[in-house]
Amino acid sequence: MILALGGNMIKKAKEKGTFEEQYKNVNESCEQIVEIIKQGWNIIVTHGNGPQVGNLLLQQELLKNKIPPMPLDVCGALSQGEIGYLIQQILLNKLRKNGINKKVVTVITQVLIDRNDPEFSKPSKPIGPFYEEENKDFPMVYQSGKGWRRVVPSPDPEEIIEKGQIKDLIEEGDVVIACGGGGIPVIEENGNLRGVEGVIDKDLASEKLAEELGIRTMMILTDVDNVYLNYGKDGQEKLREINLKKIKGYQKQGHFPKGSMGPKIEASIRFLEKGGEKVLITSPELAVDSLQGKSGTILMI
Amino acid sequence: MILALGGNMIKKAKEKGTFEEQYKNVNESCEQIVEIIKQGWNIIVTHGNGPQVGNLLLQQELLKNKIPPMPLDVCGALSQGEIGYLIQQILLNKLRKNGINKKVVTVITQVLIDRNDPEFSKPSKPIGPFYEEENKDFPMVYQSGKGWRRVVPSPDPEEIIEKGQIKDLIEEGDVVIACGGGGIPVIEENGNLRGVEGVIDKDLASEKLAEELGIRTMMILTDVDNVYLNYGKDGQEKLREINLKKIKGYQKQGHFPKGSMGPKIEASIRFLEKGGEKVLITSPELAVDSLQGKSGTILMI
Repeated sequence: MILALGGNMIKKAKEKGTFEEQYKNVNESCEQIVEIIKQGWNIIVTHGNGPQVGNLLLQQELLKNKIPPMPLDVCGALSQGEIGYLIQQILLNKLRKNGINKKVVTVITQVLIDRNDPEFSKPSKPIGPFYEEENKDFPMVYQSGKGWRRVVPSPDPEEIIEKGQIKDLIEEGDVVIACGGGGIPVIEENGNLRGVEGVIDKDLASEKLAEELGIRTMMILTDVDNVYLNYGKDGQEKLREINLKKIKGYQKQGHFPKGSMGPKIEASIRFLEKGGEKVLITSPELAVDSLQGKSGTILMI
Repeated sequence: MILALGGNMIKKAKEKGTFEEQYKNVNESCEQIVEIIKQGWNIIVTHGNGPQVGNLLLQQELLKNKIPPMPLDVCGALSQGEIGYLIQQILLNKLRKNGINKKVVTVITQVLIDRNDPEFSKPSKPIGPFYEEENKDFPMVYQSGKGWRRVVPSPDPEEIIEKGQIKDLIEEGDVVIACGGGGIPVIEENGNLRGVEGVIDKDLASEKLAEELGIRTMMILTDVDNVYLNYGKDGQEKLREINLKKIKGYQKQGHFPKGSMGPKIEASIRFLEKGGEKVLITSPELAVDSLQGKSGTILMI
């Protein structure tokens, strides 16, 4: 199973993001992951990194006259080390406590993208801190009531460079942490891989990895218990079990906005169309229940 | 073979440490590593992180009122992601160019240490930036002409937590990057691993890993071409080939100072006493030559 953990599951919206807070959050999610492993699942954990990479970018920016700032691809790599370490340590502790003899391993992951992806001419993904004024150093968008924010391209993942290593480790029975923050976006240039400034959606990257490895079940853990129609509006309706055809119809009707449920639904559709059998979308607390069909939203062919 | 790359091979002493500089340096080292791989060696690359973790610590410290600072163990994990990514990408590019079908993988590595290690009562390892004044927040030492610097414990590595994963990957024929910065120091507390503030010497950690995996050859790449007796003094003498008994004698006589060749020699001695066959100490440029016995310092039983 691919289990995608939202970046907001690591630093919750209203928290400052101290080490202690992040440790506690990861601990809670790992509690559930171990319960799933106890049921016999082999697991690849993928995760977001929005809040963490935001802090790293701010550190680069504010101290750029003192410390050479690292580019966005390197900040992605930094965050993979940071979050991977936390999950790896906490999960191993819990596995040991439960007498489960599995290894846990974080794989620094690069993801190939197409340099002609339309996102490069029209970047759409807001990242990092809010600014009071527009800064001409890079493209920005104004987010109502919050300020200006840098936007970067969010290209489609084409290939997980480290898929072979991840496959080998999974076949050893290890729990693998991969595709952190959607992976580090790289292009191929004269036969060389090179990092680029951009952010890949972690659900789309997870889907690509699942597809490449022939994984049939994907679980996306986020901060809502279910997928909804008309979310936050009149006629809000919780989805429990839904098939591919119906979800595509709702997607077309615009039920799933870009900044929240949109990429999760898009990833789910691609997954089901490429051989996937089941997608579960729910909150970490309901992860185990959702596997038993008791809660969450279940998407199937 | 275990190949230990000095942190100063990634950011050279007089450089600022920009991304471009680090990329160029890693590129040069990887040029040599590929030549070694071409000769049929399976390789685990370990590396230092002194300059990189120094910058990360400074970023935490200077912005601590704006961005929650991460503790030293997390900074180590950040640097493993950062440097691992660079080596992984560049090495893969070079392998592909040479038509060598090997995967490259960075493993985030924790290293178990003993919480009763004497270093905890008397920390010895200076890390991070220089300060003009002593700061009472943590133990510091004064380094002549340079200023005050934080010191942290540098405990002995007892076990590489991820050794099993590293072994599996090596057996697949992959090039593995591990033990970055000496690994993240963890202690065991009520059966749980927990990160602690400290820095493990990367050569000692490399030796421990070699010992655990039964690796027979260790290469330590640094900024001098050879090990010397009376280095920088009257009677300076280059060592070319030397046996265990003799090197232990010179160690006792104090030829190898703590801050430079000391840990490399200590790691070499441990390695040869625990089943290792050969240690090569030289600069990256002479790595290939040293394998053929043409240069560098060779230590054997």
